[in-house]
Order: sequence, then structure tokens, then C-alpha cells
Amino acid sequence: MLLGSIEAGGTKFVCAIGNENYQIKDETTFLTTTPSETLQKTVDYFKKFPVDAIGIASFGPIEVRKTAPNYGFITDTPKAGWSNTDFVGFLQKSLKVPMYFTTDVNGSAYGEYVMSLLSNDDIDSLVYYTIGTGVGGGAIINGKLVGSLGHPEMGHVKLKRHPDDLAFAGVCPFHQDCLEGLVSGPTFEARLNKPGKDVPLSDPVWDIMSYYVAQAALQVTLILRPDKIVFGGGVTSEAFLQKVRRDFAKLLNNYVHVPKLEEYIVLPAIDNNGSATVGDFALAKRLLRE
Amino acid sequence: MLLGSIEAGGTKFVCAIGNENYQIKDETTFLTTTPSETLQKTVDYFKKFPVDAIGIASFGPIEVRKTAPNYGFITDTPKAGWSNTDFVGFLQKSLKVPMYFTTDVNGSAYGEYVMSLLSNDDIDSLVYYTIGTGVGGGAIINGKLVGSLGHPEMGHVKLKRHPDDLAFAGVCPFHQDCLEGLVSGPTFEARLNKPGKDVPLSDPVWDIMSYYVAQAALQVTLILRPDKIVFGGGVTSEAFLQKVRRDFAKLLNNYVHVPKLEEYIVLPAIDNNGSATVGDFALAKRLLRE
Repeated sequence: MLLGSIEAGGTKFVCAIGNENYQIKDETTFLTTTPSETLQKTVDYFKKFPVDAIGIASFGPIEVRKTAPNYGFITDTPKAGWSNTDFVGFLQKSLKVPMYFTTDVNGSAYGEYVMSLLSNDDIDSLVYYTIGTGVGGGAIINGKLVGSLGHPEMGHVKLKRHPDDLAFAGVCPFHQDCLEGLVSGPTFEARLNKPGKDVPLSDPVWDIMSYYVAQAALQVTLILRPDKIVFGGGVTSEAFLQKVRRDFAKLLNNYVHVPKLEEYIVLPAIDNNGSATVGDFALAKRLLRE
Repeated sequence: MLLGSIEAGGTKFVCAIGNENYQIKDETTFLTTTPSETLQKTVDYFKKFPVDAIGIASFGPIEVRKTAPNYGFITDTPKAGWSNTDFVGFLQKSLKVPMYFTTDVNGSAYGEYVMSLLSNDDIDSLVYYTIGTGVGGGAIINGKLVGSLGHPEMGHVKLKRHPDDLAFAGVCPFHQDCLEGLVSGPTFEARLNKPGKDVPLSDPVWDIMSYYVAQAALQVTLILRPDKIVFGGGVTSEAFLQKVRRDFAKLLNNYVHVPKLEEYIVLPAIDNNGSATVGDFALAKRLLRE
């Protein structure tokens, strides 16, 4: 069995070929330019391999409801030139194989879920957050991706403000001080006038950040009771997650049972941002089973 | 087919017999006294009817994971005398039929979900909150109740504080100003020294309440993208939900698509607190199909 993965990011596309054990057999990366040029490159790549199905994890927002007239489109995106792009339709014209279309973060969530199963970690639910330029999240419940009315947008919830951060307005153009507006990468520039990579973990801003991220973990814990919460993206690190676990424990106050926090609030198990590729392969494989 | 329902509340038990169309054929109510007396009354009632399966919606916290050694127990409850009560085990000794054991609010969620399906409202997800003496929530995703590590405790999330409510500490003994600590029935006494029923809807406290409840609706909208959010319990009313919808619209700022708010944020479709009974019948029926 040959499976395809398209990780469609706003900066670059990563296309890969894998087998049924999710081992990568070939891979290519190119810049995200115009839709027609980028999608044509994608088609040209996959024409070289007789793939049985393709999983697509795309930047968004996208339409994932099969019943929607614009299913398979990138919809109202801030990425210039890409609004209302018929992503799946373009590919289907040349590549006549089943395709599973979902968000980048759903792809990563599914990859981490599958990797847990392969590691004999017997779970049926998982939440994956990415904290980088933006903040997003995806969830698996009872083995399936969540979202009846479309994909989640977990980065835009409201939170209790940290007492030392009340003067910060937040950077989200839609909601100001939502989760994304308070903890995404650009908040370092907004709060401290320097990029996050130059802010040592001893800076108190990291305790403000961890208080908010811990609240996000608390929300999904109490709403979903998932088996695991994974945090990926450029802002996260094991040292930061230690602060998140500390704040999460204080906020939860032992109210419900959770696993050992070192095994519950974790970094991605798959290295080098590879979660979405594994997720794409697994979603493609699932399409063939259904 | 004869189905049984047990709605086990901290104040009273409601037991009912229904058919496969969820029509109630018989019903009885008695006070919740000691576990042995109350559960024996329950057994005596069901011995009179040849039910095929029973759905149980219980006050909590309870153990719903079938793999747990104390599956079927009411666990660490504040209700005097009821901690570590083997609810399902007691019934199973005398009533040898399949039983589905879940929380009161999960039962209500499932009842509202089933009623939507029966009304040709083609949904596969729903969130149900109760706002009364306490605040709880349950969710159906892809047709199934949510919760891998146990049942949700949606009432204990943190929220952005309303600017006119910063001085109020909140009444939750575990988390102070969580959702339950800010909007449950007892908050009227705590804020205004009078019961909620004596506080007219023109009082500004209702706008504070709706701001918090709208945030809860925002959380589940962005995390789960459910088809519908139902608010039951003594604190809710259609007039209050109008305020919630107003605040929800402001907070969401059109960020994701939701249905018309009058059809999305709603009171229970089943009158007289009957959601859990229908849910119990439906969960019992589902047990027989599986």
C-alpha cells in the first residue's frame, strides 16, 4: 500500500509518500506561492507514485464538511491569493484517488493519536494544540476527529487574566485577549519588544504564558476528559511544559482524576514536526478501510 | 420492548418504565434517603416490570469507566452517606438486565440529542449544560457520549471576569471563581443576599451571569463545533438565554459559522426536566442493540 501526505502550510508544502506502517519512502518540500502553481507542483509530485489514497493537512480556515457546497476549499484565509481555493477539487482532476481533507492541527492530532496506539498506549482520545505564530487545536474523541459544524478553533477561547498581565490588550485582531491573543509567538514582540527566542525562561512572562496555557489544558480536561494533551509549535518546550503542569495542577486542585502530568501534558511524540505526516498517512489508510 | 429509567438525584429518585418509542408507561418518585433504603426501593419498583434494560442517570461524581475496579459506583460525593456506593452492583444483584450508567447531565444530553433526531433535526453532536444548585455539562460527539478518563465536569472551567464583577470571589469550594462559582444558583445569595427567584431580569447581575454563560458556550463552540448547545436547570429561562445569545455573538465576533443563535443556544426541547428520562430509555435501548 502506498499512501500520500500533503502538509499544506502558509509558508511551505511538504509532500510525502509512505507505506501502511507510516514509514516515509519519499518526500519533497516547496514554497507556498500562488494556488495554481503550488497545487500543480503537488499534482506533478504525486503523479510519480501510484498512491492509493492521500491525506491532506492544510492551513485554514478550510471547509471540511462533506455536505457543504465548498467542501475541500480553503475558505476565507488571511493568506494572500488563497481565499476560496478549491484545494481538493484541483487535485482530484488529476489524481483520482480518495483524499482525506482536514486542518494542519487535526492532522497532527491524528498523527500523535496513531503514534500512541502504535506505542501500545491504549487511548481513544487526544487533544493537540500548536502554539506558534497562531494557536490552534484539534481533538480525537472515541477515535474520531471532532467537529460537526466545521473544524475546531481552540485558540480563540477566553481566559481568566493573569493578575500581572491586566494591562496587556492581546494581539488577536478578532478577539484581542483570547488564548491566541495572549500566548502566540507575536505576543513576545508585543509585550517585550523582542522575539520569543531571545526571552529566557527565567523571564516572568513565561509564568504568565503558562498560566494561560494551563487554563486551556484545564478547559479540555473538564470538557472532554481526554487521555492525553499534546502541545506542539515553536513556543513550546519541555521546560515550558513543566511550568504549564505546575499551573494546571494548581488550577485543577485534584478535582478530577488525570494521569501523571508528565504523561498527560506532553510534547509531540513524533520529532521534527512530523506528526501531521503520520496523521495524513493514517487518515488516508482509514479512508481505504471505510 | 420495555425500558427502565432511573434518574438518581441528590434529593429524589425518579424511576420510569417506557417503550421503544420513549413513551412513559409508568413512573414513581421517592426521596433520596440512605443508599440501601433508596436502592432497595428502586429494585422493588423494577421487579414489578419485565424491563429489558435500564438506563441510569445519577448525581455524582460517579465511575463510568467499565475498566475501573469501582465501575458503577458513586464515588467521592458531598451527599452524606453516599460516598463509595456500589449503585450498579446493588441493582445487578436483583435485576439481571443490562444497565447503562452515566451522569445526570449526560442522561439529559443524550435525551436532548435523541429528541433532536426524532424531530428530524439531523445532528450528530450536542452539548447540554445544567445551571442550578451546581453547574454541569455533558456532550455527544459523533453520536457518542464524551469522556475517556471519566465524565466531564464542565462547570469548573475558568473564565474572563466581567469588569463589574471583579470584587466577587466566587462560591466554588474547590475553585472559587470557576463557572459554577460564578453562575450557580447560590451565587444570587452570595452577591445579593436574596434567592435568584427574587432577582428580576432587569437586575445587572443577569448581564454578568450571561457574560459568563456565553463564554462557556464560546468554549464548547470553538473546542467541539457542536450542532447545538442546550441550557437546562433552574437558573435558565428563554429571557436569560436571549442575553446569553447577545453576549455570545459579541464574543464570537463571527469567527466561525454557527447556526441561527435561536436554534443553536436553546432551552431543553423536552419539558418538565424530562430530558434524562428519555436519555435513559435511549441509552438502555442502545445497550440492547450493541
